[in-house]
Amino acid sequence: MPDLVGPVEVVGAGLLGTSIGLACRRAGLEVLLSDLSAENVRTASGLGAGRARRADDVPQLVVVAVPPDHLGAEIARALAASDAVVTDVGSIKTEPLRAVAHEPGVERYVGSHPMAGSERSGPLAGSAALFDGRPWAVTPHRGSTPGAVRLVEELAVLCGAVPVTLTPDEHDLAVARTSHLPHLVAVLMAGRLADAPPEHLALSGQGVRDVTRVAGGDPALWEQIVTGNADAVLGLLGEVRGQLDVLIDAVASGTRDRLGELLALGVAGTRAIPGKHGGPTRPMRSVFVSVPDHPGELARLFADAGASGTNIEDVHIDHDPGRPVGLVELLVEEDGAEQLLGSLESRGWVTHR
Amino acid sequence: MPDLVGPVEVVGAGLLGTSIGLACRRAGLEVLLSDLSAENVRTASGLGAGRARRADDVPQLVVVAVPPDHLGAEIARALAASDAVVTDVGSIKTEPLRAVAHEPGVERYVGSHPMAGSERSGPLAGSAALFDGRPWAVTPHRGSTPGAVRLVEELAVLCGAVPVTLTPDEHDLAVARTSHLPHLVAVLMAGRLADAPPEHLALSGQGVRDVTRVAGGDPALWEQIVTGNADAVLGLLGEVRGQLDVLIDAVASGTRDRLGELLALGVAGTRAIPGKHGGPTRPMRSVFVSVPDHPGELARLFADAGASGTNIEDVHIDHDPGRPVGLVELLVEEDGAEQLLGSLESRGWVTHR
Repeated sequence: MPDLVGPVEVVGAGLLGTSIGLACRRAGLEVLLSDLSAENVRTASGLGAGRARRADDVPQLVVVAVPPDHLGAEIARALAASDAVVTDVGSIKTEPLRAVAHEPGVERYVGSHPMAGSERSGPLAGSAALFDGRPWAVTPHRGSTPGAVRLVEELAVLCGAVPVTLTPDEHDLAVARTSHLPHLVAVLMAGRLADAPPEHLALSGQGVRDVTRVAGGDPALWEQIVTGNADAVLGLLGEVRGQLDVLIDAVASGTRDRLGELLALGVAGTRAIPGKHGGPTRPMRSVFVSVPDHPGELARLFADAGASGTNIEDVHIDHDPGRPVGLVELLVEEDGAEQLLGSLESRGWVTHR
Repeated sequence: MPDLVGPVEVVGAGLLGTSIGLACRRAGLEVLLSDLSAENVRTASGLGAGRARRADDVPQLVVVAVPPDHLGAEIARALAASDAVVTDVGSIKTEPLRAVAHEPGVERYVGSHPMAGSERSGPLAGSAALFDGRPWAVTPHRGSTPGAVRLVEELAVLCGAVPVTLTPDEHDLAVARTSHLPHLVAVLMAGRLADAPPEHLALSGQGVRDVTRVAGGDPALWEQIVTGNADAVLGLLGEVRGQLDVLIDAVASGTRDRLGELLALGVAGTRAIPGKHGGPTRPMRSVFVSVPDHPGELARLFADAGASGTNIEDVHIDHDPGRPVGLVELLVEEDGAEQLLGSLESRGWVTHR
């Protein structure tokens, strides 16, 4: 029998709040929405994410989904307003905990953080499926009651996510390394492109696009995230600075062994990232196929690929509107690549081995 | 009437050499292959990329496609061996030019560099379509004859690429910024993952994967590239170091304005990269669709998407083998997103707005 029966109050009807509302409604729970912006509440409500909160509503669980700078104040307000369990979905966990550590009722607070897309924002970008299959960090503090922890884990599962329990400190160290540092490194790289000559940028390939993509994220949000996790971020930035100095020395002095060691450490790092869904990394291979630019050709390709019995892990399309043929890259497990190639070739596709 | 009639000699039957051979053969030109590895020549030849070079062959154009460290020696050898025009396809252009600047016949040498995938290697990865729609830098030196330049440009066009003329110096500055620096920055980031605790890496999302992907490239090749373009790379690494110091100071002192400026410069940098095929960047939007894990569902999705008349620019699949539903992200021009969503919804797809 589930502990989580609602109502669930969602404070902040942006991308995450609206998505949580939609997921809870999908599960039949009552959802109460509030936001500084009445427009956001109307929009989220119109999408089916819940109804506007009324003064006499009594929530079972409050989900605080506001920008990092306001987490502490909103969590404290929610703890004082009722006896509900309170969680938040902010990107950092130690700072908001510090802010509410001495509030009455803090045993009812359990932080959390779904690892779901943040390049879009606002209630219109919300989706009940946003959390499907994603890790959702649950970060109890020492005083959190088991019942409160269970309720927050149940919310994560109800949203389709996979709860991962960490202490707030460990969480912040983890995201400093896997999210905040990559963002800042991408920002430093992208900054070197901002005033580059256009004739140089004309040689940009997929590599530089991938390395810099996340740097396009909202600066106002990232300013809060980085500031809120300053200690962990500074530790890692210091490590990068040390390695950058080693790199500069190695290149300047032509010490190729040292340069090679750094490059090899980078390869090891890419291999340390677990498979997309937490499993071990499986060796993948790209299969390239030329696809004529006619309606239905992509559909035919996927039909033929499906018929070969190979599981397609990811797809990239390189399609220039000015050319009659696009190049489609199908990412498959290494073991299945030859079978897929043979199957596609036997059906008349031009593959590139 | 074309100047390029062949034979084309390809020195080095790896990924690039084999691909050029395949493209030239597709156009009906005779192709002469050589490689330190007789096995590579046999493989490339078996794929239809040309035939083994004989001592009495007289090429019209020699394409040197060997690792960066050996470019100078092989270009010089080719210039001495016949009166053919000579080009190379290495990632750096000033160092090989310096090596051959005083060779007799250097007026017949014109450097070049196709901006095509290098994460795969060897003749088996070769493809006549590798260069389709890609920029191909052509880098004449002051003494290059117009006829030699024309011949190399014609090779690029014959391979399906778009020739971009740059001086060797400018080319090396351009790729230092758009290729070598992104690689090294990704390496520094990936290095911070190499010995990270697995429970931290469990929170890895798409961002850190994208930032670090290129760091998985062959260290032996990148050692040569970075060393060969050391001056340009060092200039940019110095800029990154300066900006890293500013970033560390801003985070350590809590100077949020300064941090915000750096983050905004990163956003500007991502916007400075031209569109995939040299055109202006068009605003794109992601459309998310839940796809049941049954054979044929992807094919049905692309059939329905095609029927909506919307051009799909790229696709990502987030598919967990353990779950019955995958999430497919379709990247389309912003203007067409609503039409695609409506069309897919009317056909019963679960979309995520």
